[in-house]
Amino acid sequence: MKTNPGRFFEDYTVGETIVHAVPRTVSGGERALYHAIYPSRHALYSSDEFARGCGLPQSPMEDLAAFHVVFGKTVPDISLNAVANLGYAEGRWLRPVYPGDTLRSESTVIGLKENSNGKSGNVYVRTRGLNQDGDVVLDYVRWVMVRKNRLDAPAPEAVLPELRKVVPASDLVVPEGLDFSGYDFALAGERHRWGDYEIGEQIDHVDGVTIEEAEHMIATRLWQNTAKVHFDATFREDGRRLIYGGHVISMARALSFNGLANAQMMVALNAGAHANPCFSGDTVRAWSEVLDKAETAAPGVGALRLRLVAVKQGAAPFALKGEDGKYRPEVLLDLDYWALIPR
Amino acid sequence: MKTNPGRFFEDYTVGETIVHAVPRTVSGGERALYHAIYPSRHALYSSDEFARGCGLPQSPMEDLAAFHVVFGKTVPDISLNAVANLGYAEGRWLRPVYPGDTLRSESTVIGLKENSNGKSGNVYVRTRGLNQDGDVVLDYVRWVMVRKNRLDAPAPEAVLPELRKVVPASDLVVPEGLDFSGYDFALAGERHRWGDYEIGEQIDHVDGVTIEEAEHMIATRLWQNTAKVHFDATFREDGRRLIYGGHVISMARALSFNGLANAQMMVALNAGAHANPCFSGDTVRAWSEVLDKAETAAPGVGALRLRLVAVKQGAAPFALKGEDGKYRPEVLLDLDYWALIPR
Amino acid sequence: MKTNPGRFFEDYTVGETIVHAVPRTVSGGERALYHAIYPSRHALYSSDEFARGCGLPQSPMEDLAAFHVVFGKTVPDISLNAVANLGYAEGRWLRPVYPGDTLRSESTVIGLKENSNGKSGNVYVRTRGLNQDGDVVLDYVRWVMVRKNRLDAPAPEAVLPELRKVVPASDLVVPEGLDFSGYDFALAGERHRWGDYEIGEQIDHVDGVTIEEAEHMIATRLWQNTAKVHFDATFREDGRRLIYGGHVISMARALSFNGLANAQMMVALNAGAHANPCFSGDTVRAWSEVLDKAETAAPGVGALRLRLVAVKQGAAPFALKGEDGKYRPEVLLDLDYWALIPR
Repeated sequence: MKTNPGRFFEDYTVGETIVHAVPRTVSGGERALYHAIYPSRHALYSSDEFARGCGLPQSPMEDLAAFHVVFGKTVPDISLNAVANLGYAEGRWLRPVYPGDTLRSESTVIGLKENSNGKSGNVYVRTRGLNQDGDVVLDYVRWVMVRKNRLDAPAPEAVLPELRKVVPASDLVVPEGLDFSGYDFALAGERHRWGDYEIGEQIDHVDGVTIEEAEHMIATRLWQNTAKVHFDATFREDGRRLIYGGHVISMARALSFNGLANAQMMVALNAGAHANPCFSGDTVRAWSEVLDKAETAAPGVGALRLRLVAVKQGAAPFALKGEDGKYRPEVLLDLDYWALIPR
Repeated sequence: MKTNPGRFFEDYTVGETIVHAVPRTVSGGERALYHAIYPSRHALYSSDEFARGCGLPQSPMEDLAAFHVVFGKTVPDISLNAVANLGYAEGRWLRPVYPGDTLRSESTVIGLKENSNGKSGNVYVRTRGLNQDGDVVLDYVRWVMVRKNRLDAPAPEAVLPELRKVVPASDLVVPEGLDFSGYDFALAGERHRWGDYEIGEQIDHVDGVTIEEAEHMIATRLWQNTAKVHFDATFREDGRRLIYGGHVISMARALSFNGLANAQMMVALNAGAHANPCFSGDTVRAWSEVLDKAETAAPGVGALRLRLVAVKQGAAPFALKGEDGKYRPEVLLDLDYWALIPR
Repeated sequence: MKTNPGRFFEDYTVGETIVHAVPRTVSGGERALYHAIYPSRHALYSSDEFARGCGLPQSPMEDLAAFHVVFGKTVPDISLNAVANLGYAEGRWLRPVYPGDTLRSESTVIGLKENSNGKSGNVYVRTRGLNQDGDVVLDYVRWVMVRKNRLDAPAPEAVLPELRKVVPASDLVVPEGLDFSGYDFALAGERHRWGDYEIGEQIDHVDGVTIEEAEHMIATRLWQNTAKVHFDATFREDGRRLIYGGHVISMARALSFNGLANAQMMVALNAGAHANPCFSGDTVRAWSEVLDKAETAAPGVGALRLRLVAVKQGAAPFALKGEDGKYRPEVLLDLDYWALIPR
């Protein structure tokens, strides 16, 4: 058989490392496309001059673009037969990605647990994105529920990794040279700095974007993510293409510019849930909540821990879960991350 | 309040200069996207070799791409609460923009006049686009009708700027080094030169393009234009997304290649009216009229003053206004500009 | 008349060479767009590092991207008034195209034959794509049926070129320096090498992509292909935009990654038929058949001759033609090409 059927639950072993295929060199083309698909305006990722004013050699690729490239490569090996994308943890951006860099990915299986129905199980992987020099640029844990192919395959010994609920502020990696002491708030678009945000504060990002099939497919393909369900309208019974969860993450993060224009760099992904599916025609909005604050050793650089919530039409303001403790049906995404912001 | 509500009429003062946020470095990515979204074929903007044959160091960004980048930055400060985009005047491209350049924008308020209903007023701004060296690359006047927020705010003293109806040919800026004396008409696509066009001549550009939601949103976002009405299908009561007027300008200009292939560079924007709104599903066509002709001091370089009209399905040939003096409902755009063409 | 009406059958003369307009410099932007529009994952075209590991200086543009750029330039002169695109033959990629290269096209008329109805005729052209150094990067024969404009124009002497049904393996041009002896099969995505494929073997590439208007127009415009029928929904009586046949070729080739991930480089186009039209909403799938195998003199480099078939929804597995010898209605494309693959 020449084609890749994907891996099933029984094909994973704790401790094995999977080298994912198809390395990718990124360029100004990927950057332009990212800004064409998402209303992304954080100045550090828009202007080489602004980035140099912050101590970086040039404007890096959007942190989520790096995430999508690294993630996309894992799909054929990790989630082709996934039933559900269950969570993220311990994600950290370790080094900016610049045009001309070549990224590849590898994942180590760090946990396995068969479900009681014997038909599927949860697979935990730690994925690393590496550049052409072998430097790790991104590291995160993801777990998915994967179908079994041979139902009589024996259940593996259950191994559940110990995962931190939040990346501690002391573990955040500030890019080398980053310096916000001469930060230009006028060019960045807002005057609010680290000290202006309070823990518990909620921000409605106001703007909405109605999702189109062509746009989410263009984005998802750009990251070489090949999951059928995003592209093939005949795949699901209802004839609808399911939108890549990362598309919603990027859309919400870009919308959060309005209120968080200075939360420039994503440096950690603490947790994330794709609460409900998103389809073409949905209008996506976003709100944020300040969960924590921290200082860093870099000049002028503070960190905010933020909850980023994406919702669709019909959502009530700042409503996340119902009385049953479950996400409301209009909630698409609940993401917990750390961002760097001038103090 | 962390988010930007936009400025209202009472927030402007004649003489103040507004620094617009989010500078932008452009690359081959923006150029490729421009050519993917518009059927743009002017050779000077398509081929580095052709541009060098015309005395430029390489192929510049399309003049309208530079315009859109500069314009897009003004939206959050000028037109977020605009009721209508009323006009353009005295626009001049002063220096080509090349991949790698970083653009930013600033606008000076040069006129204010409250409407007699007391609910809105007209704001006149002169906008400058600047590159990383501080050189002005583009300068134009635009006026918009903006809502008042506090209806009891006193009307400012009315100031109406004196604006020239047309940029005189003597004020056109020909890019340094531009030389059409060795111009390659075969590679440019048409044999017609400056002397072949007569004042009053009308050209039907023949081709049509049916507009898609994904395409106008991709374009508009690329210029970091954030006006809600272009992206959010729930914003207008009729559930339709209004297409950015600049999308129609670029579409019409690109279609004008067929008949004006040698009208390579836009150097002045004399006037422009978005006569009627454009929506997804409309099929855009264009026609031009030669309004004036002028010589320039650059070798082999002449100038044509052109009316560029974009229409949608149902338009009669070369029909612009009805007997009532108003634009016909099928007319989308009436633009008056100067272009450089080989003599 | 200032606009281009296109050439009609009586406007061609055997032996004449037509210089096509609008040369094009390609960049990382075109590459990113190609990967955003097609699910393209062949590693040689995705990663500079991988390409260097195969002896090339960097990752070239996709071979089909080069084809589309060269082809697009011919449309205004060859197929603007074409009734049908009849075939391809003797196509060879002679030199990789890299970001920064500038392509132009020229075609020599090598055959003419008026149809017996006197209303149209077949035009055979040999098209060459050239780079900025004048090197031929691509050379192919194409024939189209073109309408006559003046029905009383005399029929030209019929000239039918002798065309080889297949480019012989001995004529394949392997890019200078190409070396698959250190090929990284893990990063390429599959382990199958030249020796693993057998003549007659058929491969179902599994995945499907549902086609969107915005995507095929973005692609087709990027190649500066201006045929009205792809862009103008009012052009055909049924209100549907016909999809550029090259869009289907690229889609099918990209889908063939799953099963032919190592068939990296296209080096010859033996034949091709656009069996049925493709429209927005169709879901495209692909299958391949190994038609022949050959060795090459380059280290570790073998060649496969492949049939690549694109089909739409409703197609039976590996079904190509009906009992009447005609293509089944679900078959969109039947392409015959040579690809280089590690031995």
